[in-house]
Amino acid sequence: MPNTQRYKLVVAYDGSGYAGWQVQPGVKTIQGELERCFKKLAGEVVKIHGSGRTDQGVHAAGQVAHLDLPAYFQCKTIIRAMSALLPPDIRVLKAMKAADTFHARRSAVSKEYRYFIWNGSVLPPFSCRYRTHVYRELDVRAMRKAAKMLTGKHDFAAFTANPKRVVESTVRTLSMLAVRKSGREIVIIARSDGFLYRMVRSLAGFLIRVGQGDIPCSEAGQILDRQIRTAVVPTAPPQGLFLWRVNY
Amino acid sequence: MPNTQRYKLVVAYDGSGYAGWQVQPGVKTIQGELERCFKKLAGEVVKIHGSGRTDQGVHAAGQVAHLDLPAYFQCKTIIRAMSALLPPDIRVLKAMKAADTFHARRSAVSKEYRYFIWNGSVLPPFSCRYRTHVYRELDVRAMRKAAKMLTGKHDFAAFTANPKRVVESTVRTLSMLAVRKSGREIVIIARSDGFLYRMVRSLAGFLIRVGQGDIPCSEAGQILDRQIRTAVVPTAPPQGLFLWRVNY
Repeated sequence: MPNTQRYKLVVAYDGSGYAGWQVQPGVKTIQGELERCFKKLAGEVVKIHGSGRTDQGVHAAGQVAHLDLPAYFQCKTIIRAMSALLPPDIRVLKAMKAADTFHARRSAVSKEYRYFIWNGSVLPPFSCRYRTHVYRELDVRAMRKAAKMLTGKHDFAAFTANPKRVVESTVRTLSMLAVRKSGREIVIIARSDGFLYRMVRSLAGFLIRVGQGDIPCSEAGQILDRQIRTAVVPTAPPQGLFLWRVNY
Repeated sequence: MPNTQRYKLVVAYDGSGYAGWQVQPGVKTIQGELERCFKKLAGEVVKIHGSGRTDQGVHAAGQVAHLDLPAYFQCKTIIRAMSALLPPDIRVLKAMKAADTFHARRSAVSKEYRYFIWNGSVLPPFSCRYRTHVYRELDVRAMRKAAKMLTGKHDFAAFTANPKRVVESTVRTLSMLAVRKSGREIVIIARSDGFLYRMVRSLAGFLIRVGQGDIPCSEAGQILDRQIRTAVVPTAPPQGLFLWRVNY
């Protein structure tokens, strides 16, 4: 057996046609497509480790993964071969040699997600796969006020789809929760050292309701305090969400 | 029968999933989807007239069409109803009342097409439906020189897929043929009072070959003069092409 080398990959994908990141029997997944193509390249079974899962229909601009390959593979070769082997909606943007101790999930220090909203009467057809359409004009100032109250260290039990999936604590630190507007496009930027299950889509769902005037922004604190998920916090649809960046 | 009113529509579409603009039996077309949805709205068969056809896989940011409807339909109602009825990859962006003499094709004065190229090693997955990927770095200066030689009034027989489809003349006037670069994106902008069949994709195919250094830009004049389509002029793939604007 030749020497093996650990490689770090930056992967982008359009999640529209996939059942999410993680391999599942009988359905197309991002991890499954990557493992299938790396097996072709390496001539043996290859296991890909992602920084975390993304749900069905969620995209990534900068997912990070690692894998071990025979050390003779050059990074440029990996990128070129994957561009040829992978379907066009998944791309390895970067490949670099990493230390054996590097682990895409365990070494990650923080992550950034971006949730994109098209806030106009007609959603352009070229955006329908990548933007959530909100017809009614959103009050961005109210959304920003609510986002400010959610920033920092809190128990986010009210902002996860199924807190029982989390064995330990539902306390997380949002180092950033920003709402930016450019024309008809609104983007919610969320950064944290750890997110709960469906937390970003729950935050986005809540902020959209605040922006629509359905909930006063001042309620953000009370919802956090209650620590119970209610209908006040809907889960925003997946197509607006991008795993933007993983920091190490 | 109520009074009828002519309406002018601006329509955008992602052509990826369609067999082109024009209705054909047994396949999904843009015109077919529009006529199906307008029939639902109006409760009767409605005929849509486009400014011209677009081929399979070609997109439109600003296709123009006209139709006649009972005069009580408000333009806002048309846009909202069509957003609800049409698939998300087709949208009526604008609707306005027009004179009975307005005709989307016959009244058009000029058209603008844009051909988008991604000139980098890896095509981002979010662009794969809307950009043609050219791996090798293109010489944009050479492309501009060739474009300049093609601008103006010429016999474009060498730049149409099947000149015999054109009964009359193959002489056309390109009022603009520009090559713009922004980062890794190159866009070819073509304006004319009339285009031949597959003319823009033929111009794009030729300019890409010039940019790749396969053909010297100085040959543009000779190719025009020969007035015969040869393998020197390939037809660039459809997904980079957008019908951008129709002027009246």
